[in-house]
Amino acid sequence: MRILIENICILPMTGRDSVIEKGYLIIEDRMIKELGSGSAAPAEYDRVIDGRKKVVMPGFVNTHTHAAMNLMRGYADDLPLMEWLEQKIWPLEAQLKAEDVYWGSMLAILEMIKSGTTTFNDMYFFMDETARAVEETGIRAVLCRGLIGLGPEAESGLDDSRRLVEKWHCSAEERIKFLLGPHAPYTCPPDYLKLVIALARELNVGIHTHIAETQGEVENIKRQYGKTPVALMEEVGLFELKTIAAHCVHLSSDDIRTIQGQGVGVAHNPESNMKLASGVAPIPELLEAGVAVGLGTDGASSNNNLDMLQEMRSCALLHKVNKMDPTVLPAYQALEMATVNGAKALGLSREIGSLQPGMKADLIMLNLDQAHMQPMHDLMANIVYSAQAADVDTVIINGQLIMENRKILTFDEQQVLDQAEKHARELARRI
Amino acid sequence: MRILIENICILPMTGRDSVIEKGYLIIEDRMIKELGSGSAAPAEYDRVIDGRKKVVMPGFVNTHTHAAMNLMRGYADDLPLMEWLEQKIWPLEAQLKAEDVYWGSMLAILEMIKSGTTTFNDMYFFMDETARAVEETGIRAVLCRGLIGLGPEAESGLDDSRRLVEKWHCSAEERIKFLLGPHAPYTCPPDYLKLVIALARELNVGIHTHIAETQGEVENIKRQYGKTPVALMEEVGLFELKTIAAHCVHLSSDDIRTIQGQGVGVAHNPESNMKLASGVAPIPELLEAGVAVGLGTDGASSNNNLDMLQEMRSCALLHKVNKMDPTVLPAYQALEMATVNGAKALGLSREIGSLQPGMKADLIMLNLDQAHMQPMHDLMANIVYSAQAADVDTVIINGQLIMENRKILTFDEQQVLDQAEKHARELARRI
Repeated sequence: MRILIENICILPMTGRDSVIEKGYLIIEDRMIKELGSGSAAPAEYDRVIDGRKKVVMPGFVNTHTHAAMNLMRGYADDLPLMEWLEQKIWPLEAQLKAEDVYWGSMLAILEMIKSGTTTFNDMYFFMDETARAVEETGIRAVLCRGLIGLGPEAESGLDDSRRLVEKWHCSAEERIKFLLGPHAPYTCPPDYLKLVIALARELNVGIHTHIAETQGEVENIKRQYGKTPVALMEEVGLFELKTIAAHCVHLSSDDIRTIQGQGVGVAHNPESNMKLASGVAPIPELLEAGVAVGLGTDGASSNNNLDMLQEMRSCALLHKVNKMDPTVLPAYQALEMATVNGAKALGLSREIGSLQPGMKADLIMLNLDQAHMQPMHDLMANIVYSAQAADVDTVIINGQLIMENRKILTFDEQQVLDQAEKHARELARRI
Repeated sequence: MRILIENICILPMTGRDSVIEKGYLIIEDRMIKELGSGSAAPAEYDRVIDGRKKVVMPGFVNTHTHAAMNLMRGYADDLPLMEWLEQKIWPLEAQLKAEDVYWGSMLAILEMIKSGTTTFNDMYFFMDETARAVEETGIRAVLCRGLIGLGPEAESGLDDSRRLVEKWHCSAEERIKFLLGPHAPYTCPPDYLKLVIALARELNVGIHTHIAETQGEVENIKRQYGKTPVALMEEVGLFELKTIAAHCVHLSSDDIRTIQGQGVGVAHNPESNMKLASGVAPIPELLEAGVAVGLGTDGASSNNNLDMLQEMRSCALLHKVNKMDPTVLPAYQALEMATVNGAKALGLSREIGSLQPGMKADLIMLNLDQAHMQPMHDLMANIVYSAQAADVDTVIINGQLIMENRKILTFDEQQVLDQAEKHARELARRI
């Protein structure tokens, strides 16, 4: 399959000055073969796409979510964190069936594609269902089964993770990767983490976890272990593995130094952290320290959407006012976090996150010919501060056209809406 | 003209429990005639609109913007405030011509209609042009000419304001109101404000101003006059008139008490305050004090869009994390700020801002049958935390269909995009 996109503005995310005002991009099989300014040399293509009044850029990389929680969007809002979790979310999750996870994941994937996300990093349970949804829809994902080291499922979770990695890792034309998912320092004691680390080494996969989401977590871990969650994770040896650490809201400067030297990527979730009032993560400091920081939406029950354009804007605005400095987190940096740095945080930056020959063809086209996107004094500012999900017009993942003119090509959108609605309604009734 | 909207979910904004899950709404001439659950009694209508899978609600009231600044969207971002103003915005504004203001206003109105705003409160110059754009497009607006009391235009500004009020106030089927627009305490000394107040009394119109946007402003005013901007405005007598005060970021508790007893509405601009790093306004405190607080986008050069759905979400998220309390600013309160409380802040709540028989027919329909709006556990949470501008499907203002299925019916959308782009390009070249 050879696709030519022509007459298009290109934002390759390979540098602040790398924008091509009018150029072309060639996709061959699953890869970007060539891109440049002007016109492509004459050749035969299976598809030619006219990019006039549009921009093509890398698809967004959502570095932290819980896709199936889309079924719980708006189920319990504006509540204190523990009341939200203990009285609302956990009882609902206890009622979840495999089929719910499948349709919740399908709804999430539909929402992500419609808002330009081409890769997501997910932690949840019944992960065969999410993997199946990824396989069928054509999106790219890094998946893990959430592991809790305290309860009766501690051991079986490890067995299930091994089975999932063996079954799904590098499957679906390599669109699916699997990691191990120790949930958090407060749910996975050090001895359990050591088992997780040993298994990850054996299977040669990385780690996805939550670290330092709330002040309460940091205080509890300090009381129990005499050190911060980051220091504890380091001591246990977690950071010797490629790790993506979600949240990292409450870090000391020592914590930042600890993370700095390691293969740790941070998934920053500004909207979830704002909505749950968890706090403001020290992102300018982490970026200054050279840490790979990506953006994540967290699950739809604490955001309440999976829209990376909104996440970029919230990220840029939040850190400006938090530091009382409008030069903090400029538009290009927010774009990097949502694309190339997200890929780096997941250890995937040699495959995705920027438009270069030899990279996987994961890209999106945004429609610029709209009131809120004009005039175009600054393309990047317009994307970060003005664009909305519905501006995403076309989505290509792994060289496959997934959405064109906002129409989903690989699955039945209306069926997903109807089934997800039905399963959400039945789930709420089970409580 | 009689319009029936049927089979629709109704969010009238007359109370937290006033949602009608499936009902009808009848518009006659410029007013809402009737609404209720179930079906309307059989009658003749000029138009019947099917509202299945949609919600109808009051159009958004944008309580503070500078429409024509849409021409400057993205012109100068991520800069320190004074550098932004002095080196970028003011030199560009000095080059503005009347025709630029017309096309900038048209672009802003197009963007506002497409994102569900039906009334906006505007301060700028060449205001005949903005009034003309309002007249032609069918939107509702409260307009004023910005008044600077320090320079050579101090007096002529008053004359021009008188002329504008006499020409435009209550024109265009009463869709246009005019106010007087003393820019801010730091640009309008007390003696000048007294002239403004006298003129406002004579013309029987209210006031639109900026107050306490930055900490620097408060410090300067205190140094110069020995009191806060709010105390100074009160002493001068401004608050005896119906006043809409934009920003109010840096208020003391005395300032809040001063505002509390008066006819002062506050226009809160969370995204502009975040982007320019002005600070976080004490909105929970103002709401607690019973002050009418509306939402505003400010101009597109400091936001960078006029999207009230985004403004609601940013407002709700910002104040939660700022207070470290997820119960602050729940979804319904954000919706009130964007509709009924915005109308109240502008002194228009007997005409617009809620859906009730006898109110002006200013309403919008949102499409709920989309991935990011499903499931619908909580209609209000979904609108505030998940909806995007493109979900606004239909806009009716003053009983007139302005947009249907996202198609603008009262003017040529493509012409506005093309002309605005052309004028923005030429403007930037004049520097």
